[in-house]
Amino acid sequence: MCELLGLSANIPADIRFSFAGLRQRGGNTGIHKDGWGISLYEGRGIRSFHDPNPSYSSEVAHFFHTSAIKSKMIISHIRQANRGRVCLENTHPFSRELWGCDWVFAHNGQLKHIKKKNLKFYTPRGTTDSEYAFCYMMDKIRKHFPNRPDKKKKLWSLIQSLANEINQYGVFNFLLSDSKYMYAYCSNRMCWVTRQYPFGKARLIDTGDVIDFSNHLSKNDVMTLIASHALTEDEKWYCMKKGEFKIFKNGKHQQLAA
Amino acid sequence: MCELLGLSANIPADIRFSFAGLRQRGGNTGIHKDGWGISLYEGRGIRSFHDPNPSYSSEVAHFFHTSAIKSKMIISHIRQANRGRVCLENTHPFSRELWGCDWVFAHNGQLKHIKKKNLKFYTPRGTTDSEYAFCYMMDKIRKHFPNRPDKKKKLWSLIQSLANEINQYGVFNFLLSDSKYMYAYCSNRMCWVTRQYPFGKARLIDTGDVIDFSNHLSKNDVMTLIASHALTEDEKWYCMKKGEFKIFKNGKHQQLAA
Repeated sequence: MCELLGLSANIPADIRFSFAGLRQRGGNTGIHKDGWGISLYEGRGIRSFHDPNPSYSSEVAHFFHTSAIKSKMIISHIRQANRGRVCLENTHPFSRELWGCDWVFAHNGQLKHIKKKNLKFYTPRGTTDSEYAFCYMMDKIRKHFPNRPDKKKKLWSLIQSLANEINQYGVFNFLLSDSKYMYAYCSNRMCWVTRQYPFGKARLIDTGDVIDFSNHLSKNDVMTLIASHALTEDEKWYCMKKGEFKIFKNGKHQQLAA
Repeated sequence: MCELLGLSANIPADIRFSFAGLRQRGGNTGIHKDGWGISLYEGRGIRSFHDPNPSYSSEVAHFFHTSAIKSKMIISHIRQANRGRVCLENTHPFSRELWGCDWVFAHNGQLKHIKKKNLKFYTPRGTTDSEYAFCYMMDKIRKHFPNRPDKKKKLWSLIQSLANEINQYGVFNFLLSDSKYMYAYCSNRMCWVTRQYPFGKARLIDTGDVIDFSNHLSKNDVMTLIASHALTEDEKWYCMKKGEFKIFKNGKHQQLAA
């Protein structure tokens, strides 16, 4: 299996404290040693770092940890390979362009027989069930909406129905972004925490490091982290329900119902 | 204007010696300080590093220079902005997926009125004439060849005719790769050098650093560098002619004519 980490914030945020915890699970405190990746939005484009090496010892992860790259929307993934060999092409997050925007996707779970579905426009580079499912979703979204729809909730409904459809093939926990919104779907395991004023302290489960967010964040800052498993103690992580679909922007939940 | 650097080799090659020269031209020995990028193939996928900061002082460039990432096919670019503001989306190389392969493109020159051409499948993320031209080429290639053609020379001819067509709009020096081949087009400025046995020494024009390739390369290693301007002394760089189109694989020229 794999682990996911996403961030949605109303200011360009530094994810390194939380990423430091996730990173340990890629070969040290966890078994997800078959590569890792992170995509950070900057406008409609992304910076991405991928490495088929374990995040715990990856030199690219080490560089990322020493850099000061911030973003309002981030998706990261550490991999334990099930389907598809360990190589760069099979390393999440995957990305594709639609409407002149980068779409980014990372998945935890397995999808049996998903490759029986036909693809039209988007073709996987690698051999994972995950990238195949992503290409299928992108195909359907492009077909329904050749241009970004004026009514965003129509898009949200389509993504949710695609998530429910693909979830029938197995386990489909995912994070997805279209450069404006972060979409999170819980097949069987996903949780989230929102950090906002008044800020407190948190302790990373995997390293024991403690941070006092009041030293790093301002009164109006809001950020939400979404992860496969809680990364910190001393914070309230909320579990998503099976089949639950959530949308975030600027760190805040968006109301799905019309 | 901008500067380009490409590499085609028959072994995963270390481009850092040559890149160290190019990097200087992004804010130190040259004026191309409006961002830089590099894409390195690994299979059908790429690793990419982009930064809208000057390559000379970019921390991402510094990391790349200290890493040991090798590749048989590499495209790099340093930018002096003409069209499109300085931001991540406008930073070359650009990439898109076709046939499950990453295509990578970087451009030197300006293309007036190129945006009057219609686009269908691919949409630019940013606002450069360069990315627009790339999307136009990709549209045409996809339309002609929904799948990779069995006869590669049909594809090569199409790319050449697209290059000639777009070249009418201004200056169109470019490097392009489809993950198998490197395509180089000279509108008015492009040169190349092949390093093969017996290996000699070379001195970087921009730093004065000297390398003895015989200490780094083996008898069967072949690599070709393609660049806007020569990066080294003590090596024979060949100038491409105006309108010339070249194809490389494993460091060697491919015969274009059928």
